Amino acid sequence: MNDASTPVSAPIVIEILDQIRSQRPLIHCMTNIVVAGFTANALLAVGASPAMVENAEESAEFAQIADGLLVNLGTLTPARVEAMRAAVAAANQAQVPWVFDPVAVGALTFRTKLAAELIAQRPAVVRANPSEVLSLAGATGSTSRGVDSTAGSGSAVAAAQVLAQRAGSVVAVSGAVDYITDGDTIVQVHTGHELMTRVTGVGCALGALVAACCAVTESSLMAASAGTAILTVAAQVAASQTDGPGSFAVALLDELYALKPSTLEAHLMAGAR
Amino acid sequence: MNDASTPVSAPIVIEILDQIRSQRPLIHCMTNIVVAGFTANALLAVGASPAMVENAEESAEFAQIADGLLVNLGTLTPARVEAMRAAVAAANQAQVPWVFDPVAVGALTFRTKLAAELIAQRPAVVRANPSEVLSLAGATGSTSRGVDSTAGSGSAVAAAQVLAQRAGSVVAVSGAVDYITDGDTIVQVHTGHELMTRVTGVGCALGALVAACCAVTESSLMAASAGTAILTVAAQVAASQTDGPGSFAVALLDELYALKPSTLEAHLMAGAR
Amino acid sequence: MNDASTPVSAPIVIEILDQIRSQRPLIHCMTNIVVAGFTANALLAVGASPAMVENAEESAEFAQIADGLLVNLGTLTPARVEAMRAAVAAANQAQVPWVFDPVAVGALTFRTKLAAELIAQRPAVVRANPSEVLSLAGATGSTSRGVDSTAGSGSAVAAAQVLAQRAGSVVAVSGAVDYITDGDTIVQVHTGHELMTRVTGVGCALGALVAACCAVTESSLMAASAGTAILTVAAQVAASQTDGPGSFAVALLDELYALKPSTLEAHLMAGAR
Repeated sequence: MNDASTPVSAPIVIEILDQIRSQRPLIHCMTNIVVAGFTANALLAVGASPAMVENAEESAEFAQIADGLLVNLGTLTPARVEAMRAAVAAANQAQVPWVFDPVAVGALTFRTKLAAELIAQRPAVVRANPSEVLSLAGATGSTSRGVDSTAGSGSAVAAAQVLAQRAGSVVAVSGAVDYITDGDTIVQVHTGHELMTRVTGVGCALGALVAACCAVTESSLMAASAGTAILTVAAQVAASQTDGPGSFAVALLDELYALKPSTLEAHLMAGAR
Repeated sequence: MNDASTPVSAPIVIEILDQIRSQRPLIHCMTNIVVAGFTANALLAVGASPAMVENAEESAEFAQIADGLLVNLGTLTPARVEAMRAAVAAANQAQVPWVFDPVAVGALTFRTKLAAELIAQRPAVVRANPSEVLSLAGATGSTSRGVDSTAGSGSAVAAAQVLAQRAGSVVAVSGAVDYITDGDTIVQVHTGHELMTRVTGVGCALGALVAACCAVTESSLMAASAGTAILTVAAQVAASQTDGPGSFAVALLDELYALKPSTLEAHLMAGAR
Repeated sequence: MNDASTPVSAPIVIEILDQIRSQRPLIHCMTNIVVAGFTANALLAVGASPAMVENAEESAEFAQIADGLLVNLGTLTPARVEAMRAAVAAANQAQVPWVFDPVAVGALTFRTKLAAELIAQRPAVVRANPSEVLSLAGATGSTSRGVDSTAGSGSAVAAAQVLAQRAGSVVAVSGAVDYITDGDTIVQVHTGHELMTRVTGVGCALGALVAACCAVTESSLMAASAGTAILTVAAQVAASQTDGPGSFAVALLDELYALKPSTLEAHLMAGAR
């Protein structure tokens, strides 16, 4: 555990969730064929309005209408890459915050180059697993193979700080403990459950939820922390009701919809150390 | 409420559902990456046989084999647009009925042009939300932003009639009350539940169900009304058993599979005014 | 029933499942937009690590990192075809076993040619429904229309043997009874449930599970038999707990995660004749 880190603030998380539910931000998702449905359902459950637009003919126009943008490298195609470039440029021009999820970066040459290019466009938040953060920070010994991390989140905290400072972005590292940093402050989130790793797209949905949080608050650090807290508390509640990954995924959506301030407060306090 | 409108006829809905279950129509779906799985599951649950074929090399050949075709503009690509054009032409030539779902038309220039082009090819049914119907009818003050409607269905009834007459298609407007019109007669469906708006792809699945109904009956007005009634009654039953969007989506598929004539009759009678 | 066929061996199935859970093989899936999410969830539930990489820029590199590869013809595009060719060549070079699922072959000209080309590259296993096997074997009277088989599995056993001998692959025919053959030995799996045909992607997920089994065992015949046994026993348990396709799909994932050796043994023994 990093001594300089602080637990996430429950009142801020509650306020941000409340803002999503009242404002219903429109979130432009450029994500992959594996998780698109689950991502949209997670955003709808929490109260946001998702829309997937991935073609270069429309992505720039839509990024400027949206309240937040998610760029996820899941299942790339050259056409989707063009559409992402256009959307990112348009979002930056219109000051729409965007979240970058560099799925499997480090494992494959093509997307490793692309990730470096997109990070230079200053996403508000980079949401990644420890292996991906180590790769993006240029850490030696980074060991990415597929889409699942082979490193723990604690080992990636220092790399996350380096990356955040260099990129000018907030970096959120997912793991048994989640760490969110702007390069200076480190926020910890201790909630969550192991079943999250047995359902595809939970990490990808987190990127989308963080984009929804960015749409309703100025601070990217608070947005990334709140999105992480909302998802991991909902996951903890869901896991207490189920005992398999199929029913856990269903219960997670139900709980994102039902999540009460008192539940957030109780779980975040219990998780703080 | 429109005084000229009539409630949906339960015996006709029951007969059409029975025909789907016995004939198992093959429904060619050209839809989007977000909802493809849920759409296929809804068709399988109700007794139809779905197949997704979206490439220009195969879409025309498949449209002529199929019993019904769905064209949904969800996640467009130029290649998918070519495949849609080929499929629509082939379906028209083979007299295979097709349903058009103009997702997010009005919000984006590219698909607004495409929608106008495809509507000129005379779909049997246009299935859309109120914002999309207002946009297609050229109504002033149409306010589409993303994929969720910003207008109520009642406000789009007149536009639906105009569109139906101009296009020579049946128009089905989804909302708290659903209106289905051939430009003359207006059928109302009062069943449904608010949770339908919290699950991605429920509207898209409706388009697919309507295509299955078109495959087993001559009247597009009856087909669109029956598809709407089947989905919204199943949703009402599902919502009575669950309290979150995750479990609602699961229960909706279960109920599409289990739906009994007596349940349809009871809910449609209670919904009639 | 074929007199020369033998029931699947429970101890071998148990050993292969145990190996997947301990080795967590990385499975490169090239599959379709309809079932990608369910396929990934089935692999995660059983203990494998799925990753979907479908672009020609990355598919060859990734196929050589992976422990097994799935090539499923579901929603083809010309770009995806190029990526499949590259991945198959790379997998063969790196001796990574690959499974071929020729969805809807025989119903459409384009993919029928492609399937012939890919089978010549010697997949470890061809996983298909009876109509597809009859088509691949060049049987007269093969009657494929969509993605659902119009023939029973028993009628395709002889064709499966011919295909296996010609292709040098194991052929697994799915149906009320599953038959798996290397052209000589025929293994039968009698477990399963009718609800498997009411959920999209169960057959596609089987292809992925077989790839995971191939990653941890030398014998393709044992791998294909074990994958079939694992899925169909889990389905039988799931079907005993639910009564609709929505909840069945959820329970199936839960049971793939929870599946015990004693459950496999009991169901496979009861299923043996």
